Amino acid sequence: MSRRKVTNSTVSGQPLSPAELRRVDAWWRAANYLSVGQIYLMDNPLLREALQPEHVKPRLLGHWGTTPGLNFMYAHLNRAITARDLDMMYVIGPGHGGPGVVASGWLEGTCSEVYPDIGRDLAGMRRLFQQFSFPGGIPSHVAPETPGSIHEGGELGYSLSHAYGAAFDNPGLVVAAVVGDGEAETGPLAASWHSNKFVDPRRDGAVLPILHLNGYKIANPTLLARIPTDELTSLMRGYGHAPYLVEGSDPEEMHQAFAATLDHCLDAIGDIQHEARTARRQPVARRPWPMIVLRSPKGWTGPAEVDGHQVEGSWRSHQVPFARAREDDSHRAVLEQWMRSYRPEELFTEDGAPVPEIADLHPAGERRMSANQHANGGLLLHDLQMPDFRDYAVEVETPGTGAVEATKVLGGFLRDVMAANMDRFRLFSPDENNSNRLQDVLEVTSRTWNAELLPDDDSLAVDGRVMEILSEHTCQGWLEGYLLTGRHGLFSCYEAFIHLVDSMFNQHAKWLKVSNDIVWRRPIASLNYLLTSHVWRQDHNGFSHQDPGFVDHVVNKKSDVIRVYFPPDANTLLSVADHCLRSRQYVNVIVAGKQPTLQYLTMDEAIVHCTKGIGIWDWAGTHPTEEPDVVLGCAGEVPTMEALAAVELLRGFFPDLAIRFVNVVDLMRLQDEREHPHGLSDNAFDSLFTKDKPVIFAYHGYPTLIHRLTYRRHNHQNLHVRGYKEEGTTTTPFDMTVLNQVDRFNLAIDVIDRVPSLQIVGAPVREILRDKLIEHRIYIRTHGEDLPEIQDWQWGMGAGPQAATPDPAQNAPEG
Amino acid sequence: MSRRKVTNSTVSGQPLSPAELRRVDAWWRAANYLSVGQIYLMDNPLLREALQPEHVKPRLLGHWGTTPGLNFMYAHLNRAITARDLDMMYVIGPGHGGPGVVASGWLEGTCSEVYPDIGRDLAGMRRLFQQFSFPGGIPSHVAPETPGSIHEGGELGYSLSHAYGAAFDNPGLVVAAVVGDGEAETGPLAASWHSNKFVDPRRDGAVLPILHLNGYKIANPTLLARIPTDELTSLMRGYGHAPYLVEGSDPEEMHQAFAATLDHCLDAIGDIQHEARTARRQPVARRPWPMIVLRSPKGWTGPAEVDGHQVEGSWRSHQVPFARAREDDSHRAVLEQWMRSYRPEELFTEDGAPVPEIADLHPAGERRMSANQHANGGLLLHDLQMPDFRDYAVEVETPGTGAVEATKVLGGFLRDVMAANMDRFRLFSPDENNSNRLQDVLEVTSRTWNAELLPDDDSLAVDGRVMEILSEHTCQGWLEGYLLTGRHGLFSCYEAFIHLVDSMFNQHAKWLKVSNDIVWRRPIASLNYLLTSHVWRQDHNGFSHQDPGFVDHVVNKKSDVIRVYFPPDANTLLSVADHCLRSRQYVNVIVAGKQPTLQYLTMDEAIVHCTKGIGIWDWAGTHPTEEPDVVLGCAGEVPTMEALAAVELLRGFFPDLAIRFVNVVDLMRLQDEREHPHGLSDNAFDSLFTKDKPVIFAYHGYPTLIHRLTYRRHNHQNLHVRGYKEEGTTTTPFDMTVLNQVDRFNLAIDVIDRVPSLQIVGAPVREILRDKLIEHRIYIRTHGEDLPEIQDWQWGMGAGPQAATPDPAQNAPEG
Repeated sequence: MSRRKVTNSTVSGQPLSPAELRRVDAWWRAANYLSVGQIYLMDNPLLREALQPEHVKPRLLGHWGTTPGLNFMYAHLNRAITARDLDMMYVIGPGHGGPGVVASGWLEGTCSEVYPDIGRDLAGMRRLFQQFSFPGGIPSHVAPETPGSIHEGGELGYSLSHAYGAAFDNPGLVVAAVVGDGEAETGPLAASWHSNKFVDPRRDGAVLPILHLNGYKIANPTLLARIPTDELTSLMRGYGHAPYLVEGSDPEEMHQAFAATLDHCLDAIGDIQHEARTARRQPVARRPWPMIVLRSPKGWTGPAEVDGHQVEGSWRSHQVPFARAREDDSHRAVLEQWMRSYRPEELFTEDGAPVPEIADLHPAGERRMSANQHANGGLLLHDLQMPDFRDYAVEVETPGTGAVEATKVLGGFLRDVMAANMDRFRLFSPDENNSNRLQDVLEVTSRTWNAELLPDDDSLAVDGRVMEILSEHTCQGWLEGYLLTGRHGLFSCYEAFIHLVDSMFNQHAKWLKVSNDIVWRRPIASLNYLLTSHVWRQDHNGFSHQDPGFVDHVVNKKSDVIRVYFPPDANTLLSVADHCLRSRQYVNVIVAGKQPTLQYLTMDEAIVHCTKGIGIWDWAGTHPTEEPDVVLGCAGEVPTMEALAAVELLRGFFPDLAIRFVNVVDLMRLQDEREHPHGLSDNAFDSLFTKDKPVIFAYHGYPTLIHRLTYRRHNHQNLHVRGYKEEGTTTTPFDMTVLNQVDRFNLAIDVIDRVPSLQIVGAPVREILRDKLIEHRIYIRTHGEDLPEIQDWQWGMGAGPQAATPDPAQNAPEG
Repeated sequence: MSRRKVTNSTVSGQPLSPAELRRVDAWWRAANYLSVGQIYLMDNPLLREALQPEHVKPRLLGHWGTTPGLNFMYAHLNRAITARDLDMMYVIGPGHGGPGVVASGWLEGTCSEVYPDIGRDLAGMRRLFQQFSFPGGIPSHVAPETPGSIHEGGELGYSLSHAYGAAFDNPGLVVAAVVGDGEAETGPLAASWHSNKFVDPRRDGAVLPILHLNGYKIANPTLLARIPTDELTSLMRGYGHAPYLVEGSDPEEMHQAFAATLDHCLDAIGDIQHEARTARRQPVARRPWPMIVLRSPKGWTGPAEVDGHQVEGSWRSHQVPFARAREDDSHRAVLEQWMRSYRPEELFTEDGAPVPEIADLHPAGERRMSANQHANGGLLLHDLQMPDFRDYAVEVETPGTGAVEATKVLGGFLRDVMAANMDRFRLFSPDENNSNRLQDVLEVTSRTWNAELLPDDDSLAVDGRVMEILSEHTCQGWLEGYLLTGRHGLFSCYEAFIHLVDSMFNQHAKWLKVSNDIVWRRPIASLNYLLTSHVWRQDHNGFSHQDPGFVDHVVNKKSDVIRVYFPPDANTLLSVADHCLRSRQYVNVIVAGKQPTLQYLTMDEAIVHCTKGIGIWDWAGTHPTEEPDVVLGCAGEVPTMEALAAVELLRGFFPDLAIRFVNVVDLMRLQDEREHPHGLSDNAFDSLFTKDKPVIFAYHGYPTLIHRLTYRRHNHQNLHVRGYKEEGTTTTPFDMTVLNQVDRFNLAIDVIDRVPSLQIVGAPVREILRDKLIEHRIYIRTHGEDLPEIQDWQWGMGAGPQAATPDPAQNAPEG
């Protein structure tokens, strides 16, 4: 505990009475003691005997470095909660500080409430220590298993966006968000500072960011700890904050300095909220929100030196400060000395419970941060008030007609979902809400905006509920925080760029999977993605905007938390969206079109089709009662249209060919029922796709996914899939399908190539179709447009194909 | 062109002579004219006749809003290049401003040099217009097709990291990097401002960021344009810059203001570099680098109003300001008036070439930004000086022995690669270089660090070549910029978190794919990923750190640009790494272990095995000359070990069983030769995996990938794959394999279940193996460690399995 730094603090004052100071410090020492115990010990928790090798865990795992700082803040926040009766959550960016947060939960009794075998007694303390980062126990990071957390600490960068997500629409809530200085280097975190321009101080709660500079990452110093203080405070001012610095290492001075600063910041938050909530003239101008920079030594209060190397205040404190406490007597002596330096005999009773002085510090019941109900959002979840989605139905007199923008229709429905749920529903989008055709929502709310407004601005307001920032990461983080605290939402995004949040999706899906096995975690609303501006209609933006692979990424996650839908038209989209918005504990991916497209199903038909998730469209096939010669399968808006056009072409050429048409809305129906809850039985699959007939499948994304989902099916060897194969550029919509061979002509050729009875009679037709492809390419390269007959194509009109229909008999070769 | 704003500039001065002013303005008008022409016209390029409907493109695509600002900067940068003989690149974050950059390339003659059919004459101008965002032409964004660019403009966020990547090790280069105010909201961009702490002003070039505030995104204002100027300048100071503001809309005033500012900033860059390069005492303290904030109207110089709505200075200028110029006479009149406002008759000669005044502005040859060689990095690419990787070989006397950290061995090799290439090779890592065991590299260089240094710091230096920032995005962006300008590098990353850059990988892979078809783009060095700290050894960090799915994401991209390797030990890793570092135009993914593991192959064997990419390990199978009863396949460090252990178990129980052992290093060998250049022929595949014997395959990642790669193979129906199935937590390494059933016992059970001859005799062995699994679970939950026999296991020692070997005859059921 050498090299103490001088305490330096923006706010001065000595607000703690001697008793308060003693109480806060006792809490801190207790939490630190319990943290070290979790990392090192499996027995002898209160050091009632000298530490023996067998008391030390054989495998030491955990992160000490950030932990004492987190415990320090926890103690001070508790004092403030009690003094001010605050409703406060603790979001911990440096999630590796798991032992600290677990220790505080144990001190507050929450741990014992949710895990009854970890009582607040000696046996419970022993279990607390042993279970930490131990097989069968809890992870070393903050995780779903940690009471009071909405934030998995393994992947860094999302603490602030999660904290803001929690604060939205919770006017009484204060979220203390600790930003680690490692995490602060990440892109998602750097972007999320600007979240303060999306807070309505009247309607929303407050976030109090605490940037914790402990100076080191795994092996390097942190950037923000190594720039001059004036640069750092400039940066925070630039982010829209009023920064308050607390730095030093002397516990007593730091307690006073941090308490004074925290009081000041909470007062400032109160001021901002009071002004906004009482001002006659609305909205009031945005004011900088307070934030704290806490600069404290890494591994604070840990051993100053081990084996001649500095440990406290160094990167060597990052994980386990010294590793051979089981094998090496001198290391074990350091450990024992270190733990005894917290004076456990003053902190715990004879039977291992926290002494009353500690128990007095923390608030009671749901005011405890470890028991705050917002952090177990399912407890607070209210269903959405849902309008009847059937009221938004598009009329479809003849399937395959019309020109409807499916997501525009969805926008009308979402507008009324929004209107009925102005306290619990938000839309999120990276500047694409209108581009994705959800603009009708702006009839009942605005885009959230608490920065400068100009007279010409359109639908921007401080209390808007459509959240748009050009950061997919921030959108995703906000939505996750909003859902995890018991609300509902939908993220609309260009399909290609949703890959930006692949890793965030991973973590959320993993959180849901683990939560499903934690009895005290209550189900939350699903995370709904609407992916539009999809690969087949990014022809104008070109190759960089074309990637349908998010679905492939999603299906790697546990089948009990992921769902994927490809509604081919507006009514099916409405039905799917209604279902998704009502669901719990899933990640729902909906891929839908925003361009004017043909419609196929009436609302009643759409409901039946979407409920089944997969089905034969009798009207679209030929000779529906017969055993088919070939099955045309499809999933996705554009592939469905092309598959229909292929049927029409084929019908013109081969009137006797029996084609079965199968459309897939719920992609996971393709999978085996043993692999996914939505999976079809083999019998059901065979009854759709047959056991032995050729199947041509037109798929929205990468073809391999369909093979992957069906490789165990009986008829898999006859399955031929077309889809996106990374051929794209700036061209016409139809040409995109041609480049990837998922167009009507290529699909029809695929059928001819695979149906035995067409081997001979089909040959001349094949040539006609190939000529048609060439004719089209010539046309677009000279006119810049698709052939008029393709632009005008509607099912049953036969404009394109019939014009091209020859008499096949005439062209058939002789033998 | 209403609502002119007062010009406001940090730097004052009128540096432009009347002639210079005229020249710069003429360039700007010419580039603007050509930009509008590209977006709108397909004929009548110089408006020699009144504009007719058929002169206008049927489908209007492109982004006008950002373009005039980009053209403005281009003109001024050209003046500075000429005046100062600068070696300058232009990296354009708002890549949607494609027409502007293309226009400048045409004005400079580069377009015509690389695309001879687009001459600098009337016919060429007509083609220039028509090809833009037209089928068969060029995309609307800056793209590989754009001369002078290293930056695809479709996905936002990477301009600064690309620019810094270009500047590293190029001391004479200045990279003007335009950051769009939309892009500036993204996480990757927000993080990358701190890149200036990684620049060595002696050794590296300079980046001049120009934050272009045009105020609007697709449908929303931008955040940075709507915070007070003092907040914005605070933000830039906090990022380590000295910001200079230029705002207004009056062209003449803005020309003078921008020219004065640019001169000032280039002088400041010169000062910083001069000081650093001449100072006696090194290193000199970091100084804030200049940056410019250019605030100009969106769609500057475009129509002020159309149909009663503001266009210039509004989001309505974002893309095509008005859409019906072909159909609507009044819109067409607006277009004609707009284009004529640039006075094309003053800008172009009778035959369509730029007038001399314009031609005089731009520099000659490679000094033209559109022809700068750094932007076609393959031109400057020098091979790495490679030490002989065989010199780093680990001795392997008996396969399956030893305990070597493979990436530590690689680190020795990389150290010497680094030492031999101190001008063209860097390592990139998000604070994981040492964790990933590459620390030996620090013997010859340091980590790059141009922020505060403390006495206790380890291996940090301004001129370090190991680039560590806790931002995978920034690492990836730097590396991309470094490679695209003709250098070499390797990115080492925890396997799970490489998903953070899924989308950046997408864009780079797409860039490579497109570049392969552009004759004037020269091949660049491959982007090499070393993924370690992988799923099977993230047992201590738990579930959030376990994701092997990046490979699944990678294989969706074109097979001619992606390669995936799973070297199972140190010598194979050396061989693979040597191959990857020498390769061109690929993305190479190497997944390898960093923990002490068994070694299998001598260096000679490793070379043979890696060159084949897949092969039978005779020593590991049983009865190698026979047709096998079963094939055990494997890919990846841990699955290889478990598969070997399974063989050893099975050999103990069933001495007559013929097991073939196949190890895969080059994953794409599994695919069909028609799908991937590395793919095996069906015959070759069958000769390894048989046509009809059961195959048990232990794979490092998600099992479906192996099915996906092999679904067309003859023996696919007999292929049974084990791999990661999203079961993970904090536990022991071996238990991780048990949770996912890829452990030796489960693999042996799989064999018993699938080999017909073992159906009866195998039953009691099956029970023994299952008991072994239970015994193990009990042991780890009580001891926190793997069973000692598993910890100690080495191939051929038989400690575990043989201890458990019963007399199978004794236990066989009666019938």
